[in-house]
Amino acid sequence: MSTLGLLGFGEAGYYIGKGLVQEGCAGLAAYDAALGTDGPYRQTVLDRARDAGVATRSSVAELVASSDIILCLVPSQHNEAAAMSVLPHAGSKTLYVDATSSSPLLKERLAKAFKDKGVRYVDAAIMSAVPADGHRVPMNCSGDGAVAFADAMRPYGMRITILDGDPGLASRIKLARSVFMKGFEALCIEAFLFAKTVGLEKEIMESVSASFGKEPVETMMTRMMCTGAIHAGRRAHEAEEARDLMEAVGIVPTVTNGAIDRLKRMEALGLKEELGGLPPKDMPALYGLWEKKKFV
Amino acid sequence: MSTLGLLGFGEAGYYIGKGLVQEGCAGLAAYDAALGTDGPYRQTVLDRARDAGVATRSSVAELVASSDIILCLVPSQHNEAAAMSVLPHAGSKTLYVDATSSSPLLKERLAKAFKDKGVRYVDAAIMSAVPADGHRVPMNCSGDGAVAFADAMRPYGMRITILDGDPGLASRIKLARSVFMKGFEALCIEAFLFAKTVGLEKEIMESVSASFGKEPVETMMTRMMCTGAIHAGRRAHEAEEARDLMEAVGIVPTVTNGAIDRLKRMEALGLKEELGGLPPKDMPALYGLWEKKKFV
Repeated sequence: MSTLGLLGFGEAGYYIGKGLVQEGCAGLAAYDAALGTDGPYRQTVLDRARDAGVATRSSVAELVASSDIILCLVPSQHNEAAAMSVLPHAGSKTLYVDATSSSPLLKERLAKAFKDKGVRYVDAAIMSAVPADGHRVPMNCSGDGAVAFADAMRPYGMRITILDGDPGLASRIKLARSVFMKGFEALCIEAFLFAKTVGLEKEIMESVSASFGKEPVETMMTRMMCTGAIHAGRRAHEAEEARDLMEAVGIVPTVTNGAIDRLKRMEALGLKEELGGLPPKDMPALYGLWEKKKFV
Repeated sequence: MSTLGLLGFGEAGYYIGKGLVQEGCAGLAAYDAALGTDGPYRQTVLDRARDAGVATRSSVAELVASSDIILCLVPSQHNEAAAMSVLPHAGSKTLYVDATSSSPLLKERLAKAFKDKGVRYVDAAIMSAVPADGHRVPMNCSGDGAVAFADAMRPYGMRITILDGDPGLASRIKLARSVFMKGFEALCIEAFLFAKTVGLEKEIMESVSASFGKEPVETMMTRMMCTGAIHAGRRAHEAEEARDLMEAVGIVPTVTNGAIDRLKRMEALGLKEELGGLPPKDMPALYGLWEKKKFV
């Protein structure tokens, strides 16, 4: 039986640790950098660890010594420092699972450092909200330790999907998805800030909901993108009029300006003329055109 | 019985005119600026008019003289010139329906000019794609002629929704909706251009479709925006990592940069601290916070 050590015991570590303990996962321990400080967050970590039934360790070295698997859940800006603090203490029996929201480029670099020391490394990407799903939050994993990690933790309810690829793949998919999801969130904020400002928030919510409810989103997105090949110019112009209206009421059109630029780049491919006004029939056809035109 | 004159006989005029003739709408005529030229587009207009069964007029004056209702469907950049060319010939029996995709500010200005001459004006906003829906394309209408326009044209299948408001309202709703819809299209293009470039287009389409398929889009958007009040900073950081990855493969992150800016503006409201890490419970609560903080 493997024992798990949580490196970083913030919100994610707390919810995952608590859920695993409830599933009967024994020997769970945690270390958080706040434990080595006098700050107010130290007590929060101790309180949470007691509430979750997770033991605490007083150093990274102790955590690594008492754990076969290290699950790193520090904020992404501390990822490299956390990994480097583990490396001197880790050995061939250690499985290091990097579940931070970091760049795949960084994870590839860290994976190499671990590999050079003979330590197995897993690139784990958390694909949903931890407070909502706890230890059952979906995780995509790539790297040479992914199967061992899944074998060890699935019995406790963890939802681990093994991707057939090197470390970096899981994070690359997550970040590519983030372009869409974070962009969508920002777009919602900007659109409804504007709608509220002009007193039309209910109308726009109803109208948008109706548009999304009519068909699968893939169908809708595919049609938008394919017809965009020939209509991007007209749509950019409409977005510019919307932008002018936003500015007239004092909203800064950050996403909207980016959207106008993107639509104009699409228009500049000249596909309207080249295709004689007929949109490409599906995404592979559109991808082919983008590639041929070196769309960026 | 009212007779309808189409001002502008491009794609929209052609499809709407053809559909109305098929519904038995008599006396339909069209004028397009191309008819007064020697260019190649003149023949296209004549061919389309013959195909649609729509008579052509050789001037705006003739069109207005033979029509009770003028439905303007010119490209939005020609809207003002088209309206001004009608005005000298229009009288109190004329109903002018401005269905161009123009700014509500311009439509308000035109409405005043028509009103000053005793001509009824309708701000009409086309809410879907004309080639797909033809004369049945949904139109929102505001202004003092909206009821008369609906009474005259609904018998021929036109789907006219009367909004209780002045000219400008219909266009304002359309443009506020455009912020969302055109932004969404641009986001799709950028996200899938990136996904394709890193070879993950299938994975991202599947993942995005799954996220949208789980619940009504209103629920999803509301949760994103409300939790954004406290998590916008972290999400901006994730979007920045995604942006770095886009740049590393040569994609220009136009929408993504706008999204990062928007999320950082949200973060800068300081709601995370003020709300003690708990998101507002619904959109009205979030709207109240945006208002209080003068979010722009």
